[in-house]
Amino acid sequence: MIRGYSHQGFSHLVFCLIVSYIAFGSNLVSAAEWAPAAVKVLVAYHSQSGNTERMAEAVVEGAKSLAGTIVVLKRVGQVTADDLFSSDAIIIGSPVYWSNMSGEVKTFFDNWQFKFGVFPEFKMKNKIGAAFATGGQISSGKEVTMLTILAAMLGNQMIVVSGGGAFGASATTEGDSPGLDKKELADAQALGRRVAEVAAMLKPTPSN
Amino acid sequence: MIRGYSHQGFSHLVFCLIVSYIAFGSNLVSAAEWAPAAVKVLVAYHSQSGNTERMAEAVVEGAKSLAGTIVVLKRVGQVTADDLFSSDAIIIGSPVYWSNMSGEVKTFFDNWQFKFGVFPEFKMKNKIGAAFATGGQISSGKEVTMLTILAAMLGNQMIVVSGGGAFGASATTEGDSPGLDKKELADAQALGRRVAEVAAMLKPTPSN
Amino acid sequence: MIRGYSHQGFSHLVFCLIVSYIAFGSNLVSAAEWAPAAVKVLVAYHSQSGNTERMAEAVVEGAKSLAGTIVVLKRVGQVTADDLFSSDAIIIGSPVYWSNMSGEVKTFFDNWQFKFGVFPEFKMKNKIGAAFATGGQISSGKEVTMLTILAAMLGNQMIVVSGGGAFGASATTEGDSPGLDKKELADAQALGRRVAEVAAMLKPTPSN
Amino acid sequence: MIRGYSHQGFSHLVFCLIVSYIAFGSNLVSAAEWAPAAVKVLVAYHSQSGNTERMAEAVVEGAKSLAGTIVVLKRVGQVTADDLFSSDAIIIGSPVYWSNMSGEVKTFFDNWQFKFGVFPEFKMKNKIGAAFATGGQISSGKEVTMLTILAAMLGNQMIVVSGGGAFGASATTEGDSPGLDKKELADAQALGRRVAEVAAMLKPTPSN
Repeated sequence: MIRGYSHQGFSHLVFCLIVSYIAFGSNLVSAAEWAPAAVKVLVAYHSQSGNTERMAEAVVEGAKSLAGTIVVLKRVGQVTADDLFSSDAIIIGSPVYWSNMSGEVKTFFDNWQFKFGVFPEFKMKNKIGAAFATGGQISSGKEVTMLTILAAMLGNQMIVVSGGGAFGASATTEGDSPGLDKKELADAQALGRRVAEVAAMLKPTPSN
Repeated sequence: MIRGYSHQGFSHLVFCLIVSYIAFGSNLVSAAEWAPAAVKVLVAYHSQSGNTERMAEAVVEGAKSLAGTIVVLKRVGQVTADDLFSSDAIIIGSPVYWSNMSGEVKTFFDNWQFKFGVFPEFKMKNKIGAAFATGGQISSGKEVTMLTILAAMLGNQMIVVSGGGAFGASATTEGDSPGLDKKELADAQALGRRVAEVAAMLKPTPSN
Repeated sequence: MIRGYSHQGFSHLVFCLIVSYIAFGSNLVSAAEWAPAAVKVLVAYHSQSGNTERMAEAVVEGAKSLAGTIVVLKRVGQVTADDLFSSDAIIIGSPVYWSNMSGEVKTFFDNWQFKFGVFPEFKMKNKIGAAFATGGQISSGKEVTMLTILAAMLGNQMIVVSGGGAFGASATTEGDSPGLDKKELADAQALGRRVAEVAAMLKPTPSN
Repeated sequence: MIRGYSHQGFSHLVFCLIVSYIAFGSNLVSAAEWAPAAVKVLVAYHSQSGNTERMAEAVVEGAKSLAGTIVVLKRVGQVTADDLFSSDAIIIGSPVYWSNMSGEVKTFFDNWQFKFGVFPEFKMKNKIGAAFATGGQISSGKEVTMLTILAAMLGNQMIVVSGGGAFGASATTEGDSPGLDKKELADAQALGRRVAEVAAMLKPTPSN
């Protein structure tokens, strides 16, 4: 239990809350305030064939598997300023076009500044970031796509993690195993779960 | 205050600890146990000319500027298993040799497995990671050096941040401004500070 | 002289061409057919502030400094299929937006397929490729921008070179030396020259 | 036929060489001098499990499939200055260790300077370069390994190509298809062939 209290510590806490309540009545730090706050995760993607969309859905499932996580799933072109700024974590997925993220996804990042004005205040600072990618062939750009999504996030002073793979979750959609297979979808779920967990670790409690 | 307690909450806590102590005597969660635990940062580097070493020293200064941070500074070849595993955060610096981190730094990473056996348990999981680099020319490998250090860390399931620059702190040591200048050293300090802060956010309290 | 003839060899050649002409009259490989063919270089860029445009102009100057080189300069959005396919070499420049090439440049690459249909025939195969970049800060994405432009080219089976810097020509447009300075423009010229030279080495003679 | 002579042109050439010989006797550009020079390819690798070594052998086969190509196969630690400088093309293979090339391969690159003194003359300039990689998992560093090998080569002003894949040839050695399969070995052969072909295009004829 990373941020919780030891069992014994918690017993003490309950006890002293009771004592406090008896003693002071109001102004109490309620039990609810000590509960972990809901983490909000935005999953944004571009997809033409539907493969990246299906990966995105699996990422959502993984994130939701952590109790209390709120997840928003959107195409990159539909993300609003509020989606961006209200999220604790952002997971971005792209198909590989010529060894890199697609123009749509890159333009989405550019709009972080042109539309949403994240700089110079670094408004995305300390949000968790992660990436996923789909591509036709092995070793034809999925790594570069994920790493350069992470590079864009690092430039925004975000806190970056992998999950479901060394750089994020990825799927090879042509060749021996066309489309998405079970392992690839499981990796996408693992990424979503991983990001939700790290975001929960960093999420300030409501009383702060 | 990201993970602390509100002032009011803290007063309640002190009160109930006193009440608890009176009531139970022993088995108390002491005040010391509630204080934020010291964050330990390892700064490891390779340096031939001394430039990367001086950057490393500035990174150390930055990390130490966060009260209570313990910092260990070592050449990569001198890092022990205990240095690695007892640290909450690891910041690695390399000179640029042929557009990439030096062979010494890469061999250090390889030894995470060959000497220290971090895999398959992912023993470095959730530690904070960051990078810095020095190179003779602008745009001649410092970005690649930092990004590939971060890539190695992501493969270890570490949590990665930048600081003092888009990918980490860096210095251009030849040309118009030979050696290290004030801005470059300030960037190195900013990186150290940044890593200590993020590590503190994630550090479990001692009672856990 | 990489692909030419030694002076003596050339004298022989002229002699034997004369002899051949006398002997056979027609069907002669004319002297013109042996002259190096003009190399055509396309310089394509995106620019908002004008910095990348000025770098592009310097790249053009460098390419033109090799006698006989034909250079076309266009914004990425104005490049036609004929521009692309009639060129022996393509040099692409981008500003750095969030650690990567701009959305405009990435969309241009995507259009190699969506508009120009380069795949599956790999129509760009064996053309020379190179990159240049401008960015506000040192080590904030110029390397990544150039390397990922080169990665897109490698995926097209192009032949890739650097020039004016380890990955191509670049300029840091903010900080101590705002805008473009002499060294940065000289690097851009060196890149253009370098690409023209390599393209000339590989250019088949007209008789082939 | 990229740099050769048309059949008719060659007939003329033979004729005029005969005429020249009759006319001048000595000082003749011999037929041998006009034949395409043998291209020399160095394949250098590091391998612990044997997978990268088997890929290297397939790269050699591919390079040799171009008539007249001379191929030298060596472990990176055994490469001599003469191997390096006498080669027209160099293909380097590495296993993936923590998302990057192995320390042995990186140290080999460092030795280009420390042992072989390639800089500041850029002694590797204009040699062809390419890369291959093996790794346990998909998208866990093979792309980064190949791209950063190419980055080291670009820093040396080499001319870089892919082949057998978007960044070079690669093999995933664990999972559904452990070890090397036919497609992976065919990709390695394709890389060797590709490099030999490009090197032959650029190889100056002996009379130059």
